[in-house]
Parts: sequence; C-alpha cells; structure tokens
Amino acid sequence: MKISNYHESEPIKEVDGVLKRDVISEEDGAPNYCMRVFEVETGSSTASHSHQWEHEIFILNGKGVIAGEQGSIPITKGSVAFIGPNEPHCIVNTGNEHLEFICVIPLQKQKK
Amino acid sequence: MKISNYHESEPIKEVDGVLKRDVISEEDGAPNYCMRVFEVETGSSTASHSHQWEHEIFILNGKGVIAGEQGSIPITKGSVAFIGPNEPHCIVNTGNEHLEFICVIPLQKQKK
Repeated sequence: MKISNYHESEPIKEVDGVLKRDVISEEDGAPNYCMRVFEVETGSSTASHSHQWEHEIFILNGKGVIAGEQGSIPITKGSVAFIGPNEPHCIVNTGNEHLEFICVIPLQKQKK
Repeated sequence: MKISNYHESEPIKEVDGVLKRDVISEEDGAPNYCMRVFEVETGSSTASHSHQWEHEIFILNGKGVIAGEQGSIPITKGSVAFIGPNEPHCIVNTGNEHLEFICVIPLQKQKK
C-alpha cells in the first residue's frame, strides 16, 4: 500500500502551461493502469491528439472544455469524461483559475 | 466520448453508510478499468476485505483513515492511495463531513 498526497509527486512540464504528476505508476507496483494529475494554466491546453488507448478523467478544479469531433464540451469540477481509443481530444482551460484533473491510462500504453 | 457530472450517475448502496456511483463503466465502452466515486458517511466504513485486484484511489473530500496491515493511515482531500492485490483494507470516515473518493478498479475483476 502506498499513501501520499498528490502534491508530493514531482510535477513534470507536459507542454507549455501544462504540468503532469504521475501519482500512481508502475514504480508503485501498479500492474494495469496509472493515475496522473494534470494542472493546466488559464488559456492553456493539453496537446490535441489521438491514440489507441483510452482516458478516464475526473475534473478536480476549474473550468474548461474538452474539444474533439463532437465540438467543445464544457467541463467543470465534478465532470467525468471517458475518451475512447482513437478519439481526437484536447483539454482547454477557459476559466480564470487552474484547471486540474485526474487522468487514468493503461500502463503498457504510456508513451511519456 | 462521454462527458457527465458524477452526480448524474445513480448512487447505489454499497453497505450501510456507503454510496457508490459507477461513473465510468463497461457500458460507456471502457475496455480495461472502471471509475467509481464513493461517499462514506461520518463514522461509517467500507467493508474490510482483500481481493486479487488493485485499487487506485484519490480522496476528493473529507477526512478518514485507510486501515490495513500497516495500521490506520490518515487520508484527506488530495490523498492518493495505491492498494495492491491481496492487501487487506477498509476506508473509514473519521471526520465530520462526507468522505468522498474516486476508486479505479480493473474491469474484468468487478464483483459487484
């Protein structure tokens, strides 16, 4: 068992304005999937991309949109998103505070 | 892509004082793992048990402990827990407000 606070995980710059924390990873013994916490600055966005694996997302704080083939869908604290394999997506902070969210991805599919 | 608010998922009574919401499940197309949100009343606890699959947990609100072979470890908003396969555990609300947490488990291992 490993218990910590997510702020104890070192933030890594994902792209400009976006920090990523690997809060549960293979190093902790996770056998199947890992949990990350992202922090997106006001006006910034995660990279727009698609890939073969899914995302399971929970919005912790802030406001924004998830942009994809269905357009831009608003998200806020308490929003939950399932992004299936090969669905184009990016997550944009359209609010005036940090947008923070949990993202769970399959472990064997981690690219960076 | 499915986007909702976790409160839109119907709460199911897990045990006395504990509600569970399946916020991302196989029905949404999730291929590998599912996301649940639990709500534990003051003084209540999840069942004390162990099983062959892991939990990845993020505490959203409230205060409590995770009790296991290492004793009772305090948790609060922002705590992250990895509970490995076959580790005995239960999650107890020791605070004076609802203890809410996300729990991600492998899909093929869902028992109820």
